[in-house]
Amino acid sequence: MDLTPAPIITLMTDFGTSDHYVGVMKGVILKINPQAQVVDITHAIPPQDINGAAFLIDSAYSYFPMGTIHVIVVDPGVGSSRRALVCQTRTAYFVCPDNGLLTHILRNEGWAHTVAVENSAYVLPRVSNTFHGRDIFAPVAAHLSRGVPIGTLGDPVSQLVQLPLPKPQVTENTIVGQVIWIDSFGNLVTNISHRILGALDGRNDIVVRAGSAEIHRLNRSYAESAVGEALAIIGSSNRLEISINQGDAAQILGLKRGDTITICAT
Amino acid sequence: MDLTPAPIITLMTDFGTSDHYVGVMKGVILKINPQAQVVDITHAIPPQDINGAAFLIDSAYSYFPMGTIHVIVVDPGVGSSRRALVCQTRTAYFVCPDNGLLTHILRNEGWAHTVAVENSAYVLPRVSNTFHGRDIFAPVAAHLSRGVPIGTLGDPVSQLVQLPLPKPQVTENTIVGQVIWIDSFGNLVTNISHRILGALDGRNDIVVRAGSAEIHRLNRSYAESAVGEALAIIGSSNRLEISINQGDAAQILGLKRGDTITICAT
Amino acid sequence: MDLTPAPIITLMTDFGTSDHYVGVMKGVILKINPQAQVVDITHAIPPQDINGAAFLIDSAYSYFPMGTIHVIVVDPGVGSSRRALVCQTRTAYFVCPDNGLLTHILRNEGWAHTVAVENSAYVLPRVSNTFHGRDIFAPVAAHLSRGVPIGTLGDPVSQLVQLPLPKPQVTENTIVGQVIWIDSFGNLVTNISHRILGALDGRNDIVVRAGSAEIHRLNRSYAESAVGEALAIIGSSNRLEISINQGDAAQILGLKRGDTITICAT
Repeated sequence: MDLTPAPIITLMTDFGTSDHYVGVMKGVILKINPQAQVVDITHAIPPQDINGAAFLIDSAYSYFPMGTIHVIVVDPGVGSSRRALVCQTRTAYFVCPDNGLLTHILRNEGWAHTVAVENSAYVLPRVSNTFHGRDIFAPVAAHLSRGVPIGTLGDPVSQLVQLPLPKPQVTENTIVGQVIWIDSFGNLVTNISHRILGALDGRNDIVVRAGSAEIHRLNRSYAESAVGEALAIIGSSNRLEISINQGDAAQILGLKRGDTITICAT
Repeated sequence: MDLTPAPIITLMTDFGTSDHYVGVMKGVILKINPQAQVVDITHAIPPQDINGAAFLIDSAYSYFPMGTIHVIVVDPGVGSSRRALVCQTRTAYFVCPDNGLLTHILRNEGWAHTVAVENSAYVLPRVSNTFHGRDIFAPVAAHLSRGVPIGTLGDPVSQLVQLPLPKPQVTENTIVGQVIWIDSFGNLVTNISHRILGALDGRNDIVVRAGSAEIHRLNRSYAESAVGEALAIIGSSNRLEISINQGDAAQILGLKRGDTITICAT
Repeated sequence: MDLTPAPIITLMTDFGTSDHYVGVMKGVILKINPQAQVVDITHAIPPQDINGAAFLIDSAYSYFPMGTIHVIVVDPGVGSSRRALVCQTRTAYFVCPDNGLLTHILRNEGWAHTVAVENSAYVLPRVSNTFHGRDIFAPVAAHLSRGVPIGTLGDPVSQLVQLPLPKPQVTENTIVGQVIWIDSFGNLVTNISHRILGALDGRNDIVVRAGSAEIHRLNRSYAESAVGEALAIIGSSNRLEISINQGDAAQILGLKRGDTITICAT
């Protein structure tokens, strides 16, 4: 499938921004393609949190121009035999280790063509054991952005590592889902999509249970609730979120990733 | 008044950089205007701190090229009926919710032409209830940067929400001001401008009282004081600041925003 | 020596990213050179930590294109008589205060030509006492990136402030080095380079002592050790690092910068 790479490269890592690591990746990219435009998505993925990064890249990628190259480096297996991947979908490229980071993307996109990076002409001359973001992923993305065909980078691979994704359990009157991400405001993002929630359409009353909170409606804005009040709302990634108006829901309700959110309809 | 938009868009938000929110705003901008240059001012505005953001954008905007487009998203009213504004002054454009963020700017700039965004052709096709940074403010800024006239975006508005700005009280021998910002070094920025301080020119002695500290002169550099010593200095935004040489004044002096700083002259 | 400046300007400061300071520096640069590409290396240098910044810029600069202009502002002496420098080496330009920040760079690069900024035509019209990043270093870098010759900025200086750099002590069977940087993962970077470690080549057994940990081999990847296990590895800056697989070595081993790391060979 044809897809022209855009000269836009996004970066998502667990490197933080206290060190020089991210800056160095940008230097490597600009040395290979001075025209590349590098955009940070985030570098504050909790260390080695593959699940979190997989969720965030899935929430972000569709807002970028067609052919954008997304580099995701959350890589506990760096230096081991885990593969380095370049994956092309209908709309974008992804460059990352083979550890499950593309689990959501592959389900959404349906079609994908993936290769394992093997051609040493497109990585740095000396590859360290600890920093493939600099030595492999950044240079590969930069070469891609200059038009190097994906097939030149390595051979196709078919079976990628996949994360188990918990699905909400839906019965006639109840949906039981999980918190899958907590943002920096403390909003609790669940795996209950707008579509799943549609199963309860037409019911008179709903009760959302999230930790100690019991919520009796879906908000259309935060401001509909009083300051400090727990609320349920369809968030920006089109999933049910539990929030507290101008407060930190995770902290106040004592909830963490993986915790259960229940919706009952009557 | 004529002002050609620059292809430079700055972002100031309270979104933090742990999530994908800021990256996604950049994706939306680049999808509309691949030539735009996006510059982060800060994303660490304390959640919903409109006063802080209003001070920071005022301290920053004049250093950017003429016609720069400043996007400010600190937006506790997202999803409610608060208006989304585009404001043109003599030197710059501002895109933000109508909640007081432009209070300082409007006083400084004198002339301004402001519209409320109403034309759905310039926002994302589906506007969420929780993330207008992505769905409204970013696309509007991107379209502006491509030359879409401000009048196309919506109708003029005249009365904007304004923040009450505490003014220093000046008597013959005394100036009583407030801490209006604490920077990440712990420097206490006051609302006592260089100009107001001029009222005491020619006095022999001054005493600045800031919490437990009593300071008897104005420094010309931090290094004039011993390490660990409290000092008063005209800071980079041309206001009186209380600092501790190589220390955190806010923490050590136990002061916070809103606290009183007094200057007595004899 | 000829070196064409690249339109790439990197920034490394201790300003943090909570305030408007870094954004304002970018505004100043773009006002002078709208074609400049500004890359953040980091703004999380601990306040006034000249040693840390000197190490990080040395670890980063060689990955950028030839002629890149590196601005480093860690500047406890701002406003005092310390000089503002522009230094050209064989590969790059550096703009920073004269306080030791270039110590590693000068040793590595051998040749350097340095001037002290004196020409007020290339700094902002009004220079504050507290923010030379904005008023001096950013505009000087922007003018350099437009091709202003280094000799136009000020007169050559020969003696720069140098930091004392502790060297590892090497005897027949032992290397005693120091922790010189702790990254945000908690990895302990030492001053024991790959080359120095070569002195022990051919020995049967080594023991690395790092706080409470005793390590009996050099890893080739983190994943060779069990999760939670302390390990020694040649890190990405080609120095010995002490790490814990998927853990924070600094915290768990209770080590800090300056602490001793010993290697014994038998």
